[in-house]
Amino acid sequence: MEVAIMLYDGITALDAIGPYEVFSATMKCNVKFIGKKKGIVQMDSKMGYLHADYSFSEITSADILVVPGCSPPNYKTPMNDEETLEWIRQIHGTAKWTTSVCNGSLILSAAGLLNGATATCHWGSFDLLRSLGAIPTDERVVRHGQIVTAAGVSSGIDMALQLAAWEFGEDVSKAVQLILEYDPQPPFDTGSLKKAPAPLVERVREVLQELSEKDPG
Amino acid sequence: MEVAIMLYDGITALDAIGPYEVFSATMKCNVKFIGKKKGIVQMDSKMGYLHADYSFSEITSADILVVPGCSPPNYKTPMNDEETLEWIRQIHGTAKWTTSVCNGSLILSAAGLLNGATATCHWGSFDLLRSLGAIPTDERVVRHGQIVTAAGVSSGIDMALQLAAWEFGEDVSKAVQLILEYDPQPPFDTGSLKKAPAPLVERVREVLQELSEKDPG
Repeated sequence: MEVAIMLYDGITALDAIGPYEVFSATMKCNVKFIGKKKGIVQMDSKMGYLHADYSFSEITSADILVVPGCSPPNYKTPMNDEETLEWIRQIHGTAKWTTSVCNGSLILSAAGLLNGATATCHWGSFDLLRSLGAIPTDERVVRHGQIVTAAGVSSGIDMALQLAAWEFGEDVSKAVQLILEYDPQPPFDTGSLKKAPAPLVERVREVLQELSEKDPG
Repeated sequence: MEVAIMLYDGITALDAIGPYEVFSATMKCNVKFIGKKKGIVQMDSKMGYLHADYSFSEITSADILVVPGCSPPNYKTPMNDEETLEWIRQIHGTAKWTTSVCNGSLILSAAGLLNGATATCHWGSFDLLRSLGAIPTDERVVRHGQIVTAAGVSSGIDMALQLAAWEFGEDVSKAVQLILEYDPQPPFDTGSLKKAPAPLVERVREVLQELSEKDPG
């Protein structure tokens, strides 16, 4: 299957590379990294780059579309770029699955794909996602018809494993999990709103809120 | 802290991007992607590229060194490249922490850093790691003095979270986990040798064994 991963300046690298690694390890996918223009795109930390091997104009269809997210306020640029939104709609029109990771669902919303749909995003962006017409839910991987949205950053790995199971069967997904040795053992258990202590949530929320009010650089 | 992530052709992208994303999210690290030469390096799938922003000659020290792994047989090239091994020894000599993800520990071994040390790697490479003089253990994150090795691919996220806790304190590590929404919920539980069904392990082991006997491309 053809997997199209959209890249853009300000992206969160793990949002793209998590699903890439899973789809790649299925050995049943041809994964392509695609940007407005070919060449490097800067990560949101401004400390590194990913590389778009194809431009939007070169890729006109895909079986699986992945729209990765980014730190606030970087989603504002793709959300306000008609060329990007039109490309997303075009690929979505050809795809069996349209997916997003983290705040990538804000971009799908801006493209008009999530009106009235249950969806998720980074927990810090639920209000924004709701204001764009989607119905936020705090599940980690949310399927609404052919559209699959995932929660923050690392959830793209779980999303892609789930999608690999639906598309290629449980055995493939299980093999990928073993190949990637995905047997998570974080030292703490603070990875979601429900599990993190309230003061930590409030501290991080304030930082994200402040960032979200900025103009993209 | 200065974090140096070594890149090379044939790398497993998630091995590098997992720790990058964690260290970046601490907001206490300056992360640099470094290769023999500046420019793009090809991922092991041959379906994408990462980007080295610095060459070995430009970076002569770091606080944290990360040596990512790769699919077999791609580790053979850096393991047999004296310039790469010498650079690793040089940075290790200046670093507070020297780390590896997945088969990156084979490269650390080739550099002479793991003689008699307990260490880990991808489960498919334990015999090779042992033959190089290390003492393999199947823990997910293994600390031996200032050297921290992690198991296969996705374990780099756990390794970096653990190291962030040791270096910057538990609160920082917990905040990073929440920012990255690292609350893993894979659809299955087959991510380690102990958890995967034996026939699956054997099937994947055969594929890896066959790959390991090839010459790097």
